[in-house]
Amino acid sequence: MPLNFASDNTAPVAPQVLEALTAANSGPAMPYGTDPLTAAVEARLREIFEAPKARVYLVGTGTAANALSLACLTPPWAGVFCHRNAHIEEDECGAPEFFIGGSKMVLVGGDHARMDPDELRAIIAHTARAGVHNIQRGAVSLSNSTEAGAVYTPDQVARICDVARDFGLPVHMDGARFANAVVATGASPADLTWRAGVDVLSFGATKNGCLGVEAVILFDPERAAEFELRRKRGGHLFSKHRYLAAQMQAYLEGDLWLGLAGQANAMAARLASGLKAVAGARLDHPAEANAVFAALPRAAHVRAHEGGAQYYMWPFDQSLEGPGEDLLSARLLCSWSTRAEDVDALLALFRG
Amino acid sequence: MPLNFASDNTAPVAPQVLEALTAANSGPAMPYGTDPLTAAVEARLREIFEAPKARVYLVGTGTAANALSLACLTPPWAGVFCHRNAHIEEDECGAPEFFIGGSKMVLVGGDHARMDPDELRAIIAHTARAGVHNIQRGAVSLSNSTEAGAVYTPDQVARICDVARDFGLPVHMDGARFANAVVATGASPADLTWRAGVDVLSFGATKNGCLGVEAVILFDPERAAEFELRRKRGGHLFSKHRYLAAQMQAYLEGDLWLGLAGQANAMAARLASGLKAVAGARLDHPAEANAVFAALPRAAHVRAHEGGAQYYMWPFDQSLEGPGEDLLSARLLCSWSTRAEDVDALLALFRG
Amino acid sequence: MPLNFASDNTAPVAPQVLEALTAANSGPAMPYGTDPLTAAVEARLREIFEAPKARVYLVGTGTAANALSLACLTPPWAGVFCHRNAHIEEDECGAPEFFIGGSKMVLVGGDHARMDPDELRAIIAHTARAGVHNIQRGAVSLSNSTEAGAVYTPDQVARICDVARDFGLPVHMDGARFANAVVATGASPADLTWRAGVDVLSFGATKNGCLGVEAVILFDPERAAEFELRRKRGGHLFSKHRYLAAQMQAYLEGDLWLGLAGQANAMAARLASGLKAVAGARLDHPAEANAVFAALPRAAHVRAHEGGAQYYMWPFDQSLEGPGEDLLSARLLCSWSTRAEDVDALLALFRG
Amino acid sequence: MPLNFASDNTAPVAPQVLEALTAANSGPAMPYGTDPLTAAVEARLREIFEAPKARVYLVGTGTAANALSLACLTPPWAGVFCHRNAHIEEDECGAPEFFIGGSKMVLVGGDHARMDPDELRAIIAHTARAGVHNIQRGAVSLSNSTEAGAVYTPDQVARICDVARDFGLPVHMDGARFANAVVATGASPADLTWRAGVDVLSFGATKNGCLGVEAVILFDPERAAEFELRRKRGGHLFSKHRYLAAQMQAYLEGDLWLGLAGQANAMAARLASGLKAVAGARLDHPAEANAVFAALPRAAHVRAHEGGAQYYMWPFDQSLEGPGEDLLSARLLCSWSTRAEDVDALLALFRG
Repeated sequence: MPLNFASDNTAPVAPQVLEALTAANSGPAMPYGTDPLTAAVEARLREIFEAPKARVYLVGTGTAANALSLACLTPPWAGVFCHRNAHIEEDECGAPEFFIGGSKMVLVGGDHARMDPDELRAIIAHTARAGVHNIQRGAVSLSNSTEAGAVYTPDQVARICDVARDFGLPVHMDGARFANAVVATGASPADLTWRAGVDVLSFGATKNGCLGVEAVILFDPERAAEFELRRKRGGHLFSKHRYLAAQMQAYLEGDLWLGLAGQANAMAARLASGLKAVAGARLDHPAEANAVFAALPRAAHVRAHEGGAQYYMWPFDQSLEGPGEDLLSARLLCSWSTRAEDVDALLALFRG
Repeated sequence: MPLNFASDNTAPVAPQVLEALTAANSGPAMPYGTDPLTAAVEARLREIFEAPKARVYLVGTGTAANALSLACLTPPWAGVFCHRNAHIEEDECGAPEFFIGGSKMVLVGGDHARMDPDELRAIIAHTARAGVHNIQRGAVSLSNSTEAGAVYTPDQVARICDVARDFGLPVHMDGARFANAVVATGASPADLTWRAGVDVLSFGATKNGCLGVEAVILFDPERAAEFELRRKRGGHLFSKHRYLAAQMQAYLEGDLWLGLAGQANAMAARLASGLKAVAGARLDHPAEANAVFAALPRAAHVRAHEGGAQYYMWPFDQSLEGPGEDLLSARLLCSWSTRAEDVDALLALFRG
Repeated sequence: MPLNFASDNTAPVAPQVLEALTAANSGPAMPYGTDPLTAAVEARLREIFEAPKARVYLVGTGTAANALSLACLTPPWAGVFCHRNAHIEEDECGAPEFFIGGSKMVLVGGDHARMDPDELRAIIAHTARAGVHNIQRGAVSLSNSTEAGAVYTPDQVARICDVARDFGLPVHMDGARFANAVVATGASPADLTWRAGVDVLSFGATKNGCLGVEAVILFDPERAAEFELRRKRGGHLFSKHRYLAAQMQAYLEGDLWLGLAGQANAMAARLASGLKAVAGARLDHPAEANAVFAALPRAAHVRAHEGGAQYYMWPFDQSLEGPGEDLLSARLLCSWSTRAEDVDALLALFRG
Repeated sequence: MPLNFASDNTAPVAPQVLEALTAANSGPAMPYGTDPLTAAVEARLREIFEAPKARVYLVGTGTAANALSLACLTPPWAGVFCHRNAHIEEDECGAPEFFIGGSKMVLVGGDHARMDPDELRAIIAHTARAGVHNIQRGAVSLSNSTEAGAVYTPDQVARICDVARDFGLPVHMDGARFANAVVATGASPADLTWRAGVDVLSFGATKNGCLGVEAVILFDPERAAEFELRRKRGGHLFSKHRYLAAQMQAYLEGDLWLGLAGQANAMAARLASGLKAVAGARLDHPAEANAVFAALPRAAHVRAHEGGAQYYMWPFDQSLEGPGEDLLSARLLCSWSTRAEDVDALLALFRG
């Protein structure tokens, strides 16, 4: 069994999710989300989020969830405010711009891929000052947990949303790893989203144990009709929709999603903690969720790679050739399927 | 068990396909199509199509397959030539226009949703005659089997492709029900596609027994890089890609795809044949694949609906109120999971 | 002097319009439409249209006026209902689809390029019946005068608008030749537009004596902000805006626009009337505005072309070779600069 | 006469240009650029640029010239590399992204709005390292003269182009103020563009004495057909095209364009020089072309504004309230119509 810390999307599917597909596989079911399983999932997510008016839509990828959401919140002539390391800026090949039909990612700084609210405010204020000559102000998008493995607490989310609200702007949360943030903060899903001011959430499930399903939760139901049309013409409305719904139902059943994220987070904590015993190692970001960003001596990386560990250097194109004591950074992702012995084996390789 | 003839996408998943998901669900796998299962599927499709240089890409929906393919074949200022009842014209909410970035579906007639090659030639010739003032000439797209349940033979495909070639235009085939066409014609996949002149095929699998996977086969590998980028920015690159590949692998294994389509086609033939014994019934289109389009007396429809049969009137918004002897048309779709007793039960309801 | 009946856009500029440029060419003026001339033009058009709340924007081309207007009235997933011979369908290389960001021109028939209101109603009713799978219902767009040289009276405009209103759809009028329609109908600008139900008018001026300026008149000011942003990002906001405004001011001054159109219409009437004396000639459409569509014996066309007349055969690629008595159709356009002697000279050539 | 230094687009039109419109206003002329004047202008620009194979297209605005050019050079999934103060980034409301159909402006630093070639190289190298997940590499775009009033010499242009060429990327030059750069550098148009590696030039004329015309010069004719189609569907193909051509012809005749730019540059130099005598003033950027960016004591600004001078603070929303000795920056633009007495009057106000 390889020691795979490359991504949480290299993990297999949780058995309960696979079993749910089999359970759903009986007889005909009406397509395109008009089946009872889909209705049940929508109802369940409304309960979990204490949001009885929210509308829920399932799609197959996180990029679809983000790009479709942002397209409903931002006109083509407006920018999206996000952290400069946001997934929507760095890893989606321009999908938001494609779905919005133009737009511009307006980049904000901040530690650990968390937007700094004061910088956000200054940048929004600076945007569109010259009227029609400038890109206008669109949605604010934050990721929780962040691309650097940190989390926003409800208060921190609220500080971002407050800035957005001061300018009348909607807020999107990229929750590709939302479960990890819930577990890490101990906050309720509602507190971490709409109560803090979030309008639309990309609620990830794929990375945390599903095959390929993400829910978009529109806390404001007014945008529902537009979302449905954008989903369809984006090719993201699945015909055999019950198999998306079945994944999500199993994922939510008995708080499986929190259990899976809890395991991933615990493994990241174990890894981060264990790194203290690796000579020369240091964390680049706080390991608050399921990712560990750490600098280690080159020699430790060489040992790990020779020992079969899989993970990305960060930035990923760093060479492993050179003096062994040089510190090189890496991204180490834990998933629901990461076991303590995997972590310990990796640490053993690092320690040499 | 309801008598569901509403669509082949109301069918469940073939057991072999579900089992393949479980078989694939072991340990980590690299994401985004870099896993071995995906490579195996690409290799297998090249074999099946006798096309060693073809490139194969998996996506989750047929609309994605069609729209991404067409976007690689047609610039934004050109039209796509298709039948006026083509799925890309009628049932994708403008997805091709969205992915192409403008365009225009230029509509061609012909019996049974098969384009008439002479009309196609005349319409292409008429297009773009006034230079830059007009939409230019883009891809030709045909569906096999067609939206009316008919099929193109290799010769008929070639007649369409010959027209396209005379104008230097590429050809796309919407093969959402390609398996049904292969079974119906007895032709080889190669004869039905690239040997007849098709450049890109949307090779459907979802309707015929999978959960949600379609292959785009680029017989000309030059368009591969563009396709990959369009797929990613369209949100159609799945992270846990092995689960798309596993479905497709099982679908192809031991010619399962042909067996499933054979059952669907046989049930449609049984249904079409049985309609001869229904007083007043007549076929609207030849039932060459897995769909039966038939007109029946209103009273027969009333009996069927009261008996629990599910299917769409065609056009679907016809009222069932009125004189019982009036002929009303309907679309009756069979799938891999349709059984002879289902067909017979429906016929019994129709006969009254 | 060539006998040019090819288009009204081959005409020169009315002297008053050129003089206005010189008059405007004194000292600095603030750019982008913030100059006093632009404000004066907006005020004047509001007066002429008896629409004190209307907003007015100037652009350089008719295609820009149409495409920007339609983009403000139609979301990307909706179709525009227009006549199958509409300029926006046939002669703008997909500009509406580009600016809307997808869309589909949904084509309606009717004599003389006037939409038939009953057919329009049936087609709208048929559109989007299958929910998100279909293109939705967007704006209705009609041209006055039409592409076939006919006009809509206020009642005829109202019949179209009533259909649109029944479905809650906005109405755009392509008034590239609006002046010709006003003169032909004798109706007031208000009666021919907003009083009949038109929401946005492309008010043409270029073809009727200006260099290059068209006004978009938004009778509903709510869409103004969006229009301004679309105009800017479309590259259609002119920096030295006073020179657009000066053209338009002169065009409106002393009803110059109506005088110019009156001359063009009168010349078309003279031509249409004179064709009665041409053996074998017959009108294809009523010559209600400034265009004459007529079929003439091939020999008459040969004589005209050999005599130096310039005009387009309609369709334009008809060969002049063949039996002289064959009837071939042509489009003959008159402009403000067409003189009676030009018409008579053409008729003389036709008569032989 | 107000002292207008707000922009060069507040200037009137050079008399020779207006006269050319009158000269062109005789009889009919074929539309859409098929007239002889347009052909003459294309030929003349080929001569001036010593580029016999170049293709030339006229449009009405600089934003159109830039956005259409970039759309021909960059696919929708690629970024455009430009200075962070580039007009295409800051002042076109996302027009490039709209015309390209997505894209991303990838921002590069450098003094005086000149891109630093080393930073450009590093940023290009960093782009698209993660394959399809990232925005790809598109065109490099530089402005000459720059948005800060500096110029690139031929060598400096070549250094940028060399970087682009190393990555196989095309180069666009925004020459909204190209004439000012030619005069400032004394370089030939060819040396400043294609000989240094530029593929496409937006050749500005509006700011430097025309009403509204810019030429796009494609040194590589292969992109011509695409440009023509993009221009048409962008609504930027003028019907009465001769009036664009006439402006440009007069602008080029007898090197009028260089004379006008020479006057503007000379006035900027006079202004920059005169600022040395204003207590506390200092230049923010070298005044190499027709723009002066300078910081002056607040009291000097107050005196100028009270004296009727018009110009923008830079950034433009700075308050004039506060201690009089505070230094506040402003942008002061000279045009072909700026006179020595205007400059001297402004300086007198500044000096107090």
